[in-house]
Amino acid sequence: MLAVVNTRIYEERREKLRALLRGRGLDALLVSHAANRFYLSGFELHDGQCNESSGRLLITAHGKDWLCTDARFFDAARRIWDEERIFIYKGDAFAQIGALLKDSTRGVTGFEAKSVCCHGAQRLGLRLLAADGLVESLRMIKEPGEIAALERSCSLNHKLMKYAPSLLSPGCSEADLAWSIERFFRENGAAELAFPTIAAKGKNAALPHHTPSGRTLLDRECPVLIDCGARLDWYCSDQTRTFWLGKTPTPEFTRTLELVREAQKEAIRGIRPGMSGMEIYALAFAFFERHGVERAFTHSLGHGIGLETHEEPSLHPHNSEPVPPGTVFTVEPGLYYPEWGGVRWEYMLVMEEDGARILAS
Amino acid sequence: MLAVVNTRIYEERREKLRALLRGRGLDALLVSHAANRFYLSGFELHDGQCNESSGRLLITAHGKDWLCTDARFFDAARRIWDEERIFIYKGDAFAQIGALLKDSTRGVTGFEAKSVCCHGAQRLGLRLLAADGLVESLRMIKEPGEIAALERSCSLNHKLMKYAPSLLSPGCSEADLAWSIERFFRENGAAELAFPTIAAKGKNAALPHHTPSGRTLLDRECPVLIDCGARLDWYCSDQTRTFWLGKTPTPEFTRTLELVREAQKEAIRGIRPGMSGMEIYALAFAFFERHGVERAFTHSLGHGIGLETHEEPSLHPHNSEPVPPGTVFTVEPGLYYPEWGGVRWEYMLVMEEDGARILAS
Repeated sequence: MLAVVNTRIYEERREKLRALLRGRGLDALLVSHAANRFYLSGFELHDGQCNESSGRLLITAHGKDWLCTDARFFDAARRIWDEERIFIYKGDAFAQIGALLKDSTRGVTGFEAKSVCCHGAQRLGLRLLAADGLVESLRMIKEPGEIAALERSCSLNHKLMKYAPSLLSPGCSEADLAWSIERFFRENGAAELAFPTIAAKGKNAALPHHTPSGRTLLDRECPVLIDCGARLDWYCSDQTRTFWLGKTPTPEFTRTLELVREAQKEAIRGIRPGMSGMEIYALAFAFFERHGVERAFTHSLGHGIGLETHEEPSLHPHNSEPVPPGTVFTVEPGLYYPEWGGVRWEYMLVMEEDGARILAS
Repeated sequence: MLAVVNTRIYEERREKLRALLRGRGLDALLVSHAANRFYLSGFELHDGQCNESSGRLLITAHGKDWLCTDARFFDAARRIWDEERIFIYKGDAFAQIGALLKDSTRGVTGFEAKSVCCHGAQRLGLRLLAADGLVESLRMIKEPGEIAALERSCSLNHKLMKYAPSLLSPGCSEADLAWSIERFFRENGAAELAFPTIAAKGKNAALPHHTPSGRTLLDRECPVLIDCGARLDWYCSDQTRTFWLGKTPTPEFTRTLELVREAQKEAIRGIRPGMSGMEIYALAFAFFERHGVERAFTHSLGHGIGLETHEEPSLHPHNSEPVPPGTVFTVEPGLYYPEWGGVRWEYMLVMEEDGARILAS
């Protein structure tokens, strides 16, 4: 699969990072986080197992960058990177990258302390400065091409949510439902799921991290929460809907659904660029508070989304950072009652100059 | 899904780890690697994104262990762990775990330096001793229940490999083929793929890390390499076959296939418990050397497999550690020629008292 953007985009992103490096007095940054690596190079969005890196980038303030990887990836690397600046390590990767760093940089080199293990940092053999979040700060503001990709990805998710009610039938298990959703995504162009699908019947909807069970069967009348997303053109989608299977939703369900959707509408109406994550969160919280149900709203209001399902900005009650135009994030209020379940409803939005627009709606 | 083993198994494993801790003079071990955590507790085999942990274990020499996680996982945690010894963190997880460590341990605490990021280690606020590989050394020797699960998982993979030839037809893309394989696994009981499927036509088979392309279509006559695996009953499978689509395989293909299969047979016949990884590797290498093709054998002979696709023992040419009875590993010789492709053939084997037995054959 080709990247949705050409290699020029990656060069431009690296130039922006260089400006950040100079501003911080850094001579270079060792990029280890997989999504950051891909964002800056188009090289391998994924690592193998969590402890198996596909490669690292060394981005330097003076402009001579390196792509460091092992021989398995040489062919993939040279398709998107100047072959003379590909550094192939073998055996002790960290020690060899450490030697490259010594040769290639003069001043202070930063590294992503959240994405390098202690073992690796020690093997590097030199002291680096923790400089997390630099690439993430670039990734937070989406380029037009990224917003278009997110819109396509979200559009497929909207199609899924229109199709989903036809999958709900008594006797179908949560696991069957989750697999039908995955098949729909994959057979309609998605490369993979963005995260494991949540398909939760009744009380299970109150568990924020429920794994669909093959033994939990849908009833003739029951609420079903679906929270799912897929990766299309490299970018993630994430949406939640809560359905009632059957003809007679309980009054609690109907009322809760109304409150959640109304809170979502009010929050979306109130969002303006430059508001902080906590101010946006407060829009929904205040609505729930006015209706006396705020204690049932147990999580943040949303999160940024892009190459990863969870990225900046976070709409949680302690985030005082402003949310600028060009960010893409979810707005997903929910109310949960362990006795019977809960309701969550989620859209993806892009921040524009005059407010937030629902993607692909 | 229930674990294939009951909670007693986890207690026994923790007891074995305690013995290792005492032998090393450690008062406790902070377990962060996801598969190790699951192996010792049955709690959450997966983390969210690579930078999102589902939880950590604190295993102490004196026997009072902790499961540390956040509120999202509390319900899942108390199903498998004494509720009074579940530590729920909120916000700065590492700092809070650091405080727990100070309260709960007296002597030297070990940690998995390959599975804790530099940022986290610093936030812990106390100096821990790198003690990687302890849990992995237990995991390397499979219990009878684990071998049975691996045999079931491998058996599904054998079924796939019998079905695979029917999927090969001219005009089918590598990506179509990979998706058909994934569907087969999932619709026959697998929870997920063990790793991304390799489906490689012709020259692509020579790339050890080829991603199946939607634009590479099978020809009327061509070699196709399939390397795939799935997770069933928590355990991974991994097998490779190389097929010829059509009726007239080239002489090079036929000859290479014969050599690879003969090397594999000879290696398997020669394996004895206690041989080192490099001695086992040498069995296949020597065969290739006798036939003058050893330069086309570019990777290790195999790897351990269990809860993860890649674990101990490794059958690479520098591993001098003995491979004892109870280990499960792949034997996968291959020969690669960039001009036309290559051949790999892979079985999973369990080391028994008198040699290695092919699983589920």
